Amino acid sequence: MPGSYCTADIQKITNCSTSVSSTSASPATEFLELQSLMISTKHDSQQDGGEKNLKQPRKAPLQGMRTCFLKLTSYFSGDMQISAKWVEKQFFLVQLLDWVLRGAAQVMFVNNPLSGLIIFAGLILQNYWWALNGFVGTVFATLSAVILQQNRGAIAAGLYGYNGILVGLLMAVFSNAGDWYWWLLLPNIFMSMMCPIVSSALASINSRWDLPVFTLPFNILVCLHMVATGHFNLYFPQVLIQPRSETPNITWDEIDVPKLFMSVPVGIGQVYGCDNPWTGGIFIISLFISSPITCAHAVLGSAVGMVAGLALAAPFGDIYFGLWGYNCVLACIAIGGMFYALTWQVHLLAIICAFFCAYLGSAIANIMATFGLPSCTWPFCLSALTFLLVTTETKKIFKLPVAKVTYPEKNLGFFWNLKKQWKLEKEKEQQKAVREENIKAVREENIVNEKEKLRIEQRGSREHPQASRET
Amino acid sequence: MPGSYCTADIQKITNCSTSVSSTSASPATEFLELQSLMISTKHDSQQDGGEKNLKQPRKAPLQGMRTCFLKLTSYFSGDMQISAKWVEKQFFLVQLLDWVLRGAAQVMFVNNPLSGLIIFAGLILQNYWWALNGFVGTVFATLSAVILQQNRGAIAAGLYGYNGILVGLLMAVFSNAGDWYWWLLLPNIFMSMMCPIVSSALASINSRWDLPVFTLPFNILVCLHMVATGHFNLYFPQVLIQPRSETPNITWDEIDVPKLFMSVPVGIGQVYGCDNPWTGGIFIISLFISSPITCAHAVLGSAVGMVAGLALAAPFGDIYFGLWGYNCVLACIAIGGMFYALTWQVHLLAIICAFFCAYLGSAIANIMATFGLPSCTWPFCLSALTFLLVTTETKKIFKLPVAKVTYPEKNLGFFWNLKKQWKLEKEKEQQKAVREENIKAVREENIVNEKEKLRIEQRGSREHPQASRET
Amino acid sequence: MPGSYCTADIQKITNCSTSVSSTSASPATEFLELQSLMISTKHDSQQDGGEKNLKQPRKAPLQGMRTCFLKLTSYFSGDMQISAKWVEKQFFLVQLLDWVLRGAAQVMFVNNPLSGLIIFAGLILQNYWWALNGFVGTVFATLSAVILQQNRGAIAAGLYGYNGILVGLLMAVFSNAGDWYWWLLLPNIFMSMMCPIVSSALASINSRWDLPVFTLPFNILVCLHMVATGHFNLYFPQVLIQPRSETPNITWDEIDVPKLFMSVPVGIGQVYGCDNPWTGGIFIISLFISSPITCAHAVLGSAVGMVAGLALAAPFGDIYFGLWGYNCVLACIAIGGMFYALTWQVHLLAIICAFFCAYLGSAIANIMATFGLPSCTWPFCLSALTFLLVTTETKKIFKLPVAKVTYPEKNLGFFWNLKKQWKLEKEKEQQKAVREENIKAVREENIVNEKEKLRIEQRGSREHPQASRET
Repeated sequence: MPGSYCTADIQKITNCSTSVSSTSASPATEFLELQSLMISTKHDSQQDGGEKNLKQPRKAPLQGMRTCFLKLTSYFSGDMQISAKWVEKQFFLVQLLDWVLRGAAQVMFVNNPLSGLIIFAGLILQNYWWALNGFVGTVFATLSAVILQQNRGAIAAGLYGYNGILVGLLMAVFSNAGDWYWWLLLPNIFMSMMCPIVSSALASINSRWDLPVFTLPFNILVCLHMVATGHFNLYFPQVLIQPRSETPNITWDEIDVPKLFMSVPVGIGQVYGCDNPWTGGIFIISLFISSPITCAHAVLGSAVGMVAGLALAAPFGDIYFGLWGYNCVLACIAIGGMFYALTWQVHLLAIICAFFCAYLGSAIANIMATFGLPSCTWPFCLSALTFLLVTTETKKIFKLPVAKVTYPEKNLGFFWNLKKQWKLEKEKEQQKAVREENIKAVREENIVNEKEKLRIEQRGSREHPQASRET
Repeated sequence: MPGSYCTADIQKITNCSTSVSSTSASPATEFLELQSLMISTKHDSQQDGGEKNLKQPRKAPLQGMRTCFLKLTSYFSGDMQISAKWVEKQFFLVQLLDWVLRGAAQVMFVNNPLSGLIIFAGLILQNYWWALNGFVGTVFATLSAVILQQNRGAIAAGLYGYNGILVGLLMAVFSNAGDWYWWLLLPNIFMSMMCPIVSSALASINSRWDLPVFTLPFNILVCLHMVATGHFNLYFPQVLIQPRSETPNITWDEIDVPKLFMSVPVGIGQVYGCDNPWTGGIFIISLFISSPITCAHAVLGSAVGMVAGLALAAPFGDIYFGLWGYNCVLACIAIGGMFYALTWQVHLLAIICAFFCAYLGSAIANIMATFGLPSCTWPFCLSALTFLLVTTETKKIFKLPVAKVTYPEKNLGFFWNLKKQWKLEKEKEQQKAVREENIKAVREENIVNEKEKLRIEQRGSREHPQASRET
Repeated sequence: MPGSYCTADIQKITNCSTSVSSTSASPATEFLELQSLMISTKHDSQQDGGEKNLKQPRKAPLQGMRTCFLKLTSYFSGDMQISAKWVEKQFFLVQLLDWVLRGAAQVMFVNNPLSGLIIFAGLILQNYWWALNGFVGTVFATLSAVILQQNRGAIAAGLYGYNGILVGLLMAVFSNAGDWYWWLLLPNIFMSMMCPIVSSALASINSRWDLPVFTLPFNILVCLHMVATGHFNLYFPQVLIQPRSETPNITWDEIDVPKLFMSVPVGIGQVYGCDNPWTGGIFIISLFISSPITCAHAVLGSAVGMVAGLALAAPFGDIYFGLWGYNCVLACIAIGGMFYALTWQVHLLAIICAFFCAYLGSAIANIMATFGLPSCTWPFCLSALTFLLVTTETKKIFKLPVAKVTYPEKNLGFFWNLKKQWKLEKEKEQQKAVREENIKAVREENIVNEKEKLRIEQRGSREHPQASRET
């Protein structure tokens, strides 16, 4: 099923490429920035479709195709600014759909409606009821933000929707009333509509340290709903979660290696509360479309979580189920190129953050279980915020201003430009210093020369004392 | 009993009106501000005592009485600034009494010693021992603030007393040692004296976002005392509070509608930990004296809490006992006109906040029960702070600077003045723009005219070339 | 054993005095600042070794010895700046050792490698394995700060080490796997290396209110490790901690007074998780070497904690074990002269803070026990931060800027200088005011005189009208 969806999607993209051949300046400049970073992407896709080109001896057509491909890529990868500009002039419902799709993808920091569409496909593959709840949540969260007159740019980037989709999804996931219990939509809508309020309030606090709110509103609101009702509620019962009270039975002989590897995509799926590995795989594709760096860090994070689970003697079942992965996925994406400009030091920091997040995940899960709560994405939020608050005296770990954050590849471009500026400024200062030294030297020379002159004159005047008196 | 008290009170007010007939300028200006808002008040009171006036045909005496009534009202309603100025010049003990009474009323954001007196009457009606503890708490909290040299204006407004009364009251309410256990006064005095320290510390943090501290110091200190001692303490045992462990038995047939309606005043009473509906009724009167808007929102909040309790399948006993109401009462007052200027959007926001607060109340009660703690007014504090942190791009939801907050009616006056200023500035800008356009137009006309002249001259010169040469 | 160590230590100091007789200017100026404060120290030591001097009739040698003693004192007391400057030019390993020793002492706010050395001796006396873990923790925390390029000055002051030593020690103390379980070093190293990250992140937040991070990173990381693994973990089991569930049996007849007095040094030892009273005694000596004020407040704090424990009906075992003391020790040091300049008001505040801290300690211990956690030094952090956030309108409670904090004696010098400046400024202003008044008076006199003159002249001119006309 996901396969067929993908094909349809690719066809759409192809249609897109033919219809938008007359491009304005912006996409061209954009793909130039991407060009250097998309090399891996190019290679991957050229292996399939570009082999014929390689056989052709002439370079010009090949380059033409490359350019064409990059142009094409720039239309659906990254944050799809062209589509966003086109949508701005459409009816409200079209706009809303764009915002909702972007909101669905923003959970993974991806500002891309196509990724959002693919993610919804993955959700439908997992469970219709959950997908419906997620959709309702995103729609009402976005609408609420519109009613509350929040910043239009932020709404259009889906920044008011991603908490909504998580609230909707996870309220359905953790409900003990079974699927298609329609009353659940009531608290779902209420909590979704509270999302922009909590987001706005948290942003007022976090903005003082130039920090994003991440999924904190979702964490707060879902925990709120779950603990307010609890397992023993008559209308909205929650699944029973209890703290661990005995040593789990862990024997390394029983380990199931294929399942262990499967836990990597499952961990990515668990970001949306999905345990289907195919759904996780679809999510990986949706990440790859928008930003390969994000995709790589997502996979890396999930793997780190799995390893941390094994190291801390977690029951294998939890690891297979992806519970150790999803927080690390988000933390690794956030630190690895999204809010820091990607250098190898930052890459290392992202891995450390993922480990720390896994540790924190276990801790928070145990604490929350005392209240009958799941750990949600608290571990990710807290660990990522901690790592974003770190200050250091090296320029290799450069935190982007939150207002300038887009997606890792573009962030990197921004950082490189900044570095060039720094270099230029340094060179200018050096040149200034050199010039000033030269001027000094020249002046000193002049002074020496004049002294010499004076000395010569004095000598002359001594030799011809009358002459000096005459002058 | 409360009825007799009220009559005495009214007589007192009447005496007051005769004794203070020679007024300075300030009350007059003040009641002008009130005039437009007090219409409902006027009508209510005119139904009883003003009927004779209505029968009189002549308008002048009626207007005179109206003015007189408003003048009278201005002496004991609102924040009673005239009394505050009079108290300033009295002995310390009189000042302290004024501060303590204002402190008692400040729990409900009312800066009015008369309301404070009525509230103490309500407390005495409920339980002598509790009232004593509340009084001791207020006195020592205020004294401690004086010793710590806190801001005199804030002390005089009762802002250092309201946490003290709550600490004193609730420590008595939740004590398991029974009434008249005199040792309890020791931790009571210690905790009350800690109030200004915790208040000052929290204010240092909250002032960065221009937020009040609400009853956070009370929440912190009472929870501190309760969890530090606990149910199994030998000297200061607390009542046993345990988390819910089974589904409550809720059958709608068993609902007791009169009790349900009674839960509205009980909810208001529970702000001070009182479950007597008469006490709640007295509190409503005390609110009405100072500010009808506050009073209306208090009743509304309590009703919202009751509805939310029914919606979330709470045991009926809890609802009847007012546990779902008191947080909503405070939240609804705080948002509905106290810290936001009252518009119908803000009114709606206050209702939403009350719902959110009820939800949060259930959540926090469940969490706190794990530690054997009551939810105190944490839900109110957190929900109100959240709603005060919200930023929006509309001017209809206008958050007053905390330093300008007095009471809803006066806040509204402040907001209207501000709006007028905005309007005037806008008009000025428009006029400027118009003038500048006029000037531009005139200039352009001049230019056109000159061009015309030149053309005419040129034509003339062409026709009489000699003339032009001559000039 | 600790006795012999002390003798060795004193010999070392004596050697030091002979080897560093040729002093630079800085220690001399430093001991002048100390001179007035060290009177108690002088007296104590003169009773033992200085008796002979007192018998000598001549004053000059006595004064010489005094100066010599103070010079000597300035080399190893306070923050040992001379040693710090010397270390700066040494190999990295020597630097690291200095940083680690200072880090070990910084737990008690002492920036002194000698104190650190003595503290390590105390730890070895308690338990070899714990001491090793503490050492490893300090080293790796400091190294991690160097790798992360944190501020060199802060690293050199041991401010990145003290959380490391606590993390290392307490992870060993609370481990249920027994001593010499070498695998424990792995999480120990990981958590120690996380210290600078968490420290830096917290500092970003706390610096907004000019607050230190205290031992919050240690609290966070140790609780994180303990709750992430828990009692039932296979690899890293923790000791079982459970909430109290019955009234403890307290009969005042059973009280053991010597044990009660012993609980004062034990309380100081518990800052590092040690229950050996000798270890506590050694710690007291290490504090006394650096700063007698700190030492006095440490003992006072521990005593206050003991009293608070008795007042709140704590089981005697807990009090004997020092659990009521260690937080109060730290809180009393922090408030009493370290972050506030020591006046008698501040001294009182420190005692109140210690009481509050004891109360809070009981509360937090009960809450944390629900999660199977110890209270660590959360109570100290929270109470000290609260008291540092307090603002007041009196100048008697003066909070030092965190960047200017060194040790109580020097802080006092800083405060006195500031007070002198304030006085001078006031005097200047008064003089200015006086001068201006004088000038005014002179002017007025002049004006009067001139008027007088004019009048005289006018009179003259009236008498001799021709003369005036001529001029």
